[in-house]
Amino acid sequence: MTDPKPYFEAHVFCCTNRRPDGHKRGSCAAHGSEKLRDYMKARARELGLDGKVRINSAGCLDRCELGPTMVVYPEGVWYTYHSPADVDEILDTHLVKGGRVERLMLDTDQRELRPEQAG
Amino acid sequence: MTDPKPYFEAHVFCCTNRRPDGHKRGSCAAHGSEKLRDYMKARARELGLDGKVRINSAGCLDRCELGPTMVVYPEGVWYTYHSPADVDEILDTHLVKGGRVERLMLDTDQRELRPEQAG
Repeated sequence: MTDPKPYFEAHVFCCTNRRPDGHKRGSCAAHGSEKLRDYMKARARELGLDGKVRINSAGCLDRCELGPTMVVYPEGVWYTYHSPADVDEILDTHLVKGGRVERLMLDTDQRELRPEQAG
Repeated sequence: MTDPKPYFEAHVFCCTNRRPDGHKRGSCAAHGSEKLRDYMKARARELGLDGKVRINSAGCLDRCELGPTMVVYPEGVWYTYHSPADVDEILDTHLVKGGRVERLMLDTDQRELRPEQAG
């Protein structure tokens, strides 16, 4: 049996977990992920991506030190993002054009943000 | 540039969206998804899947009529599940052994549960 074809062309999960202020790992919501997730949803709609791309909130993705984090499936590419401009770049380059925003991508074994990624 | 290797071998998202009682689309939380998600997380830990498989909550996955729903990435396989026994079968067959629980799988164009899927 073959798996059914994808329900969404791309499925994005934005961590919106919130920890108490001062927690040593921080949290994506404490770094503003909820507003950025709202912006991403609205911009995806404006770009006509509805039905092809789904933007979802998710619980803790467990890469808190790199947050706010998001992951795009099925390709499994992770990003950090800190501003509406970052969101626009990810939407346009990755989700519309199928490219990658290398500056914001997270490596598999990455444990802290690179200088060019810091918000 | 090649995409980094997967951070998780399998990444599971369980819809825990809740709509008000009586909403015509229903919602996964109204069908018990939160308790089943908790059970899934605990069982995955007991099975030693931590670090390889991540079980997350997600906002509305927009397949409410088929809920509770979950999706497993990167393969993009969707399931409906209604009991701890369903969760156990998905964990053991799909996430431990790499197979599929065909009875609970959702087709791409499916709009209502099949008789054998009803909870």
